[in-house]
Amino acid sequence: MITALAGGVGAARLLAGIAGVIDPTEITAIINTGDDVTLHGLHISPDIDTVTYTLAGLGDAERGWGLAQETWHVMDALARLGGQAWFRLGDTDLATHLYRTQRIHEGATLSQITHEISSSLGVRSSLLPMSDDPVKTYLTLASGEEVGFQDYFVRFHHDVPVSAIRFEGASRAVPSPGVIESLSSADTVIVCPSNPLVSIGPILSVPGISDTVAARRDSVVAVSPIIAGRALKGPADRLMSELSHEPSAAGVARLYAHLAATMIIDVADAALADDIEATGMSCVVTDTVMSTPDKAMELAKRAVDASGSSHAA
Amino acid sequence: MITALAGGVGAARLLAGIAGVIDPTEITAIINTGDDVTLHGLHISPDIDTVTYTLAGLGDAERGWGLAQETWHVMDALARLGGQAWFRLGDTDLATHLYRTQRIHEGATLSQITHEISSSLGVRSSLLPMSDDPVKTYLTLASGEEVGFQDYFVRFHHDVPVSAIRFEGASRAVPSPGVIESLSSADTVIVCPSNPLVSIGPILSVPGISDTVAARRDSVVAVSPIIAGRALKGPADRLMSELSHEPSAAGVARLYAHLAATMIIDVADAALADDIEATGMSCVVTDTVMSTPDKAMELAKRAVDASGSSHAA
Repeated sequence: MITALAGGVGAARLLAGIAGVIDPTEITAIINTGDDVTLHGLHISPDIDTVTYTLAGLGDAERGWGLAQETWHVMDALARLGGQAWFRLGDTDLATHLYRTQRIHEGATLSQITHEISSSLGVRSSLLPMSDDPVKTYLTLASGEEVGFQDYFVRFHHDVPVSAIRFEGASRAVPSPGVIESLSSADTVIVCPSNPLVSIGPILSVPGISDTVAARRDSVVAVSPIIAGRALKGPADRLMSELSHEPSAAGVARLYAHLAATMIIDVADAALADDIEATGMSCVVTDTVMSTPDKAMELAKRAVDASGSSHAA
Repeated sequence: MITALAGGVGAARLLAGIAGVIDPTEITAIINTGDDVTLHGLHISPDIDTVTYTLAGLGDAERGWGLAQETWHVMDALARLGGQAWFRLGDTDLATHLYRTQRIHEGATLSQITHEISSSLGVRSSLLPMSDDPVKTYLTLASGEEVGFQDYFVRFHHDVPVSAIRFEGASRAVPSPGVIESLSSADTVIVCPSNPLVSIGPILSVPGISDTVAARRDSVVAVSPIIAGRALKGPADRLMSELSHEPSAAGVARLYAHLAATMIIDVADAALADDIEATGMSCVVTDTVMSTPDKAMELAKRAVDASGSSHAA
């Protein structure tokens, strides 16, 4: 059994890789909901959807989000009406948000809904929102203004300096059913190559999750989302730098050293292995760029095996 | 200046006819919102949309609701997810609901939003929701179960007997800005050929509207939606019968006699003219079947002129 802490695209690719090397029913993903946003009255869970669509084989590999063969009739009409079309929601994707929102109005939990949608799309792994309670990531901009994650990410193209991050609601949030159990009982816990501050950070902010992971640190493996000082996608490098973390695989290791015994870094960062081991982690150096499904499976295999190998090391 | 009380399809056709015979900017439509429904978290105003789309020249004449050249990608995907797809929302139509819902979340009133959408689609007449406050039409079925209008109309195909109608929220509702003024100052008020009980009824249930119309009864003209004992569309005839009103143009006249001095009925009902005049109304007999835009304009002309002619009568 493998349990993974997951953000969006990087996590989805690694999870698809893991599902290629072990039985998908043995995988549980605990997914960030700090990015969830209500837009047009619809409850949108971007990271849950990215993981769901990717594991269902329906994701758009090129764009990295949303669905392949998507159409855009609703957004085009909304733009003609002068509506808020900056957050592009494809027609098929919108059906997911309509379904989720209707079920929330009916009193279903995000866990139940996530299970319904993912099952309906043929996903065999367990996808768990980190919490059924609302936790919302806010970023303080250099101007002092505080904005929600999607405003920062989509509207401002994550192109504005950030001075602080806050997870509203986290202190009162409860891990969703199965989260603590799957983190305790998994053979290996994998921290996916997602943004440590705004994708993994919100998950760890939910009371109980970080402690449960730390308590089984020996068999926890983290994969660096930073390669040669850069995030493959998104603002992880800049955010780390702006918030006084070294924007490197070693900086990531320092954030995770208390939780994970093993760190997987890219071959481009081999020179950082000593720095990483100085944090008390074992370091596995491999190709971490998941440019094809095969490469994702190779990385997945290293991650699944790394916990065993670090024990042996 | 013409002010009309309007439900859905029949009203929309007559209003388009009126816009063909007088300057569209001189028309105000006060539109039923008792059918409004929240579905998938979206605020849907079916009658407002039918009138808007029709006056914008975008309506689907054949189907009678929604937009011409509509696509159905979202509903198809929702059905695949096992979602509630019984209320068919086309992709372009959905953009209207996303826009409206987003603006409601931002604090805009239904009046403001209706103005924004209709202006944006090129409608030059004033479209006013009957109220910015929620008024919801409920129907009690013979079983004793009470259902919302859309459940009755769309889900049950209005094929179940009704024993009572109730307009929840009506007693606390306030007419939207401009409603009372336009009803007072119009040269003629036209009660469109909409369902008297569930389309015009909710409008008249908003405090102040019925009294304002009654106070100027002499120049109020009602068009019967019942022709030869049958509604052209929808359940008006059956509802009237189930609720102990004669399902005929004369039955409609008895419902409107306190509000309107003139009743327009179809040539098929010429024999009812005496019954109608017995209610104290003048009766105009003409072709009321708006099967083409030209016929709608002819009926519109009769309605616009009828108030004058009834004075002369």
